[in-house]
Amino acid sequence: MKRVAIVMGSRSDLPVMEAAAETLRALGVPHSMTVASAHRTPERVEELIAEYESSDVGVIIGAAGGAAHLAGAIAARTALPVIGVPVASGALNGLDALLSTVQMPPGVPVAAVSIDGAVNAAVLAAQILASSDPEAMAAVRRYRAERSAAVVKSAEEVESRYQG
Amino acid sequence: MKRVAIVMGSRSDLPVMEAAAETLRALGVPHSMTVASAHRTPERVEELIAEYESSDVGVIIGAAGGAAHLAGAIAARTALPVIGVPVASGALNGLDALLSTVQMPPGVPVAAVSIDGAVNAAVLAAQILASSDPEAMAAVRRYRAERSAAVVKSAEEVESRYQG
Amino acid sequence: MKRVAIVMGSRSDLPVMEAAAETLRALGVPHSMTVASAHRTPERVEELIAEYESSDVGVIIGAAGGAAHLAGAIAARTALPVIGVPVASGALNGLDALLSTVQMPPGVPVAAVSIDGAVNAAVLAAQILASSDPEAMAAVRRYRAERSAAVVKSAEEVESRYQG
Amino acid sequence: MKRVAIVMGSRSDLPVMEAAAETLRALGVPHSMTVASAHRTPERVEELIAEYESSDVGVIIGAAGGAAHLAGAIAARTALPVIGVPVASGALNGLDALLSTVQMPPGVPVAAVSIDGAVNAAVLAAQILASSDPEAMAAVRRYRAERSAAVVKSAEEVESRYQG
Amino acid sequence: MKRVAIVMGSRSDLPVMEAAAETLRALGVPHSMTVASAHRTPERVEELIAEYESSDVGVIIGAAGGAAHLAGAIAARTALPVIGVPVASGALNGLDALLSTVQMPPGVPVAAVSIDGAVNAAVLAAQILASSDPEAMAAVRRYRAERSAAVVKSAEEVESRYQG
Amino acid sequence: MKRVAIVMGSRSDLPVMEAAAETLRALGVPHSMTVASAHRTPERVEELIAEYESSDVGVIIGAAGGAAHLAGAIAARTALPVIGVPVASGALNGLDALLSTVQMPPGVPVAAVSIDGAVNAAVLAAQILASSDPEAMAAVRRYRAERSAAVVKSAEEVESRYQG
Amino acid sequence: MKRVAIVMGSRSDLPVMEAAAETLRALGVPHSMTVASAHRTPERVEELIAEYESSDVGVIIGAAGGAAHLAGAIAARTALPVIGVPVASGALNGLDALLSTVQMPPGVPVAAVSIDGAVNAAVLAAQILASSDPEAMAAVRRYRAERSAAVVKSAEEVESRYQG
Amino acid sequence: MKRVAIVMGSRSDLPVMEAAAETLRALGVPHSMTVASAHRTPERVEELIAEYESSDVGVIIGAAGGAAHLAGAIAARTALPVIGVPVASGALNGLDALLSTVQMPPGVPVAAVSIDGAVNAAVLAAQILASSDPEAMAAVRRYRAERSAAVVKSAEEVESRYQG
Repeated sequence: MKRVAIVMGSRSDLPVMEAAAETLRALGVPHSMTVASAHRTPERVEELIAEYESSDVGVIIGAAGGAAHLAGAIAARTALPVIGVPVASGALNGLDALLSTVQMPPGVPVAAVSIDGAVNAAVLAAQILASSDPEAMAAVRRYRAERSAAVVKSAEEVESRYQG
Repeated sequence: MKRVAIVMGSRSDLPVMEAAAETLRALGVPHSMTVASAHRTPERVEELIAEYESSDVGVIIGAAGGAAHLAGAIAARTALPVIGVPVASGALNGLDALLSTVQMPPGVPVAAVSIDGAVNAAVLAAQILASSDPEAMAAVRRYRAERSAAVVKSAEEVESRYQG
Repeated sequence: MKRVAIVMGSRSDLPVMEAAAETLRALGVPHSMTVASAHRTPERVEELIAEYESSDVGVIIGAAGGAAHLAGAIAARTALPVIGVPVASGALNGLDALLSTVQMPPGVPVAAVSIDGAVNAAVLAAQILASSDPEAMAAVRRYRAERSAAVVKSAEEVESRYQG
Repeated sequence: MKRVAIVMGSRSDLPVMEAAAETLRALGVPHSMTVASAHRTPERVEELIAEYESSDVGVIIGAAGGAAHLAGAIAARTALPVIGVPVASGALNGLDALLSTVQMPPGVPVAAVSIDGAVNAAVLAAQILASSDPEAMAAVRRYRAERSAAVVKSAEEVESRYQG
Repeated sequence: MKRVAIVMGSRSDLPVMEAAAETLRALGVPHSMTVASAHRTPERVEELIAEYESSDVGVIIGAAGGAAHLAGAIAARTALPVIGVPVASGALNGLDALLSTVQMPPGVPVAAVSIDGAVNAAVLAAQILASSDPEAMAAVRRYRAERSAAVVKSAEEVESRYQG
Repeated sequence: MKRVAIVMGSRSDLPVMEAAAETLRALGVPHSMTVASAHRTPERVEELIAEYESSDVGVIIGAAGGAAHLAGAIAARTALPVIGVPVASGALNGLDALLSTVQMPPGVPVAAVSIDGAVNAAVLAAQILASSDPEAMAAVRRYRAERSAAVVKSAEEVESRYQG
Repeated sequence: MKRVAIVMGSRSDLPVMEAAAETLRALGVPHSMTVASAHRTPERVEELIAEYESSDVGVIIGAAGGAAHLAGAIAARTALPVIGVPVASGALNGLDALLSTVQMPPGVPVAAVSIDGAVNAAVLAAQILASSDPEAMAAVRRYRAERSAAVVKSAEEVESRYQG
Repeated sequence: MKRVAIVMGSRSDLPVMEAAAETLRALGVPHSMTVASAHRTPERVEELIAEYESSDVGVIIGAAGGAAHLAGAIAARTALPVIGVPVASGALNGLDALLSTVQMPPGVPVAAVSIDGAVNAAVLAAQILASSDPEAMAAVRRYRAERSAAVVKSAEEVESRYQG
């Protein structure tokens, strides 16, 4: 299976993005995680993309807050699918990051997930790899079945407590 | 190459979504386009998904305005990657559609593109298919090179007109 | 009297929605409460609606956060009146849930109440049942009179403390 | 069948609210329509409510723009279910009207529909009356079936035009 | 000097509105403070206005959160100047209250101050009374001079600490 | 009767502010109207205030768009009541002007009216003057009665057209 | 005098940015103008910066709409002052561009001006160059005096028309 | 090297603005810091500007919250480059301050940085001084290199912890 490369714009995004790594681990999808800033280390971003393109990376996840350019900066330099995670931070709590991530110009898409949506970035990455990988597809289906079951279980608990 | 299925929530989304079909045609990616409403024809949405899962569809694009549930309703019922296009309509001009599309709960991602981002939905779909299809990858690269060239050409035009 | 069915999209909505059950209890209106996710358990949502339609349910309350599709997904499948409670959660604090709940397309209404408006969802449900049930109407009037009296009492307290 | 009373805050809301009257006519639901402003004619609003309470009115629809207090002012004085239509007008295009309509305090609910959602206000009113009126329920089901059929028809049209 | 009547929509607004009473006390302006809800006690609001109109009240301050109709409901029933204080509460933190307070229709103005702007409501009320009362004008000028002096003092403190 | 001084930040605000002058004329309130920019002609703003303070001006109306500082800049230099009209202009259509006008710091209030609320600025100014001027009070009451009558008339027209 | 380099992300920004070139011409400040997209031609952006750094450029203006990364991408690669112009385009009308331009992370500032603020970008660039260039400073002062005079002239016109 | 003058509108802005002074100290740029309010001490703002213009000040930083007029009020009275820091405070958490700072009218620019962007205001000020000061330019480059190195270091730390 191909690898998912997670890049975050700042070490401060780590508490949010750990959930992406954990989800990929749970899904059995190979992944790596690092830090690179589109604004403070633009050359490093370029080097990472070159490395990813010449290796086994199939999907890249870029996560950043504020004027969140990281996912877009990556998408500008590769034809691999790029997923963007807007990270809530600062006074606007992620609205700025969401708009900076999702409102990309025609021809250079970023696949945006929800604010702080690290889990969904991982699941989406797995779904993309799964289109050519039955093993990944099976893992995604298992993962989703588990979450459905958790909903049903919490339903039983709530129902038993509240019998109007 | 697998097929991209475009579904829009209302016929009124057609002027926006035609650009997705055109872009996929330009990229040489097989596609279909239809209308199905998560709110007015929920059974039809389910039937379409069943049909897509048992055929050659690799990516689904869902486009809707307002309380835009279509992409999410599709994502709830398939493990195929689902791209969501928030369509600008009504008084809030797409902000409602953007939030309804992108803010999905953990476990059920939608890959959101920009408001009215039909072209990017198509390019992203092609990039996803391209991860296991060198032909699609070549088409995406050609398409992007053309757009880069168009920028350079407009730069020359502007530079020749404005020489401070 | 008919029953009010409360459905929430996630167990995490319970602290908000408990107030709906309490208010219905205070109003003497029969009710049930459970969990079902439009995105993680779409089939379960359909099963619940079928059950509600063939039983004594008169009004359904759907509560969800983020891309809050639950009330709309219910409204798409029943002609019973559906009340939507946008739940504040995540970075946008309920603005996303409000727009996802209220901006429904023509023909499939959701009766939206305020963000986290569990009490008002219950009162509105009682008012709807009351249109054909004098007992419910009396309960609603009693409930509102009590709240008016509470305002008058707090007025007296404030007035006695602040005599300019 | 009971009557639906439509009240709008200003004659300028008429182009939006005509659709409510048309929809109720199509549904065979008795209705009346008038103008009364919570700010310019508060006594008239009170008189109308008194008249509605002592007559055959089952649901009241209040429509207003800007600081849209009309539906809330009605809800403050009656235990009948009140539906609020936020009307898009002025610089904020209905966002102000939406928040003024939906964010009601605990105990005094307004059932808010989408901005300019006159059709949905009518359908919701019919659904509320339908809970004790099989004829109204049948009309609502017919109306919704027609709209579903219209979606299917536009799907056929789009499919025949776009065969990737 | 005429009296300033402070009305708040809920006892929960008291921690914000205490500052209005304190400021009026500091300014030597007679005032009263009470609770009345436009939605839970509409008749009480009307009674208060009748009382204010037939007494020595010169300005009314109305403070409320959420769908903040109180100041507008007062303005609808009196020609006395009405000041509105949008109170931050709930998920939208006062944005709803601000728009519900300030976006009044032509002919029925509310003088809106900032969110939670209890102090400014008091100062504005004093300035309005001061237009026909030299004593009030002198008090306002003294009050403002004190605040200017406080700024200058804090400037000295900051300057002495930070000498680049 | 004292005079109302209308100041607008730019000649482009004139189409909005003409309604303030017309309303004051209809109310029989003396007024003047001029242009002065807090940013382009700060000294002129100071000169005007000095002139107003030493003449018969009782209320100042400041109208501006964008980063609308005019009303606040006036309020910073006078103890006369200052009314602010946020003017809709540019990309944000008055939301910027509203927040720049209403969110004043403690001690220096601006009485904000709605976006483009020129009529209400005039009515509020008249109400303020009316607190010490029975003639102005009578004019305000007459003006409001006329507007109420207009609502009733439009109600009759709508009722006669729409008899469900 | 040093040169101001204007870069816009798309040819469609030209109608907005022409005003920057005109203003610099009026100020007698040398300038160039071209097109380069951070997303479609990232290498071209880098080449331009290298060229600017090794030539007489003193300030760079970057203008873009949507997920407006251009000014930030430039700022990431140069220590020259970078001014960002958020361009209004698409459904969100520049709010996305504003947040994407101004919310830069610590260490890599962009000097943001207003949405579509091409004139102010030019004036700010001139003010920056003027800090070491008396000629530029004189031009800025002349330009501002002219604008002040225009305000005074429009004031006279308005005053002569509206004499209360 | 010229001096950077930091002015904040209130002592309560000090916790945010201390970072500007620290950053300028780290960059070796002379600076001063004081308090002056555009609304409470307008004359003091004018006096400071006069003092700055006749001394060695090269750039002014104005920081304020709410209806943040300080930077604009400074820019109205000097041709020196003015940087505006919108400070997060109150219910709207800096969105009001951002719009009040950045949306300046043509001819009077403020260089806005991010909400609470004290560090970037300092770096931008240094970049502006650096255009005519090689020493300042060297300091800026050193500062940025240090921040890039910090990103690389945190990348190594994250990579060593998360090896998929």
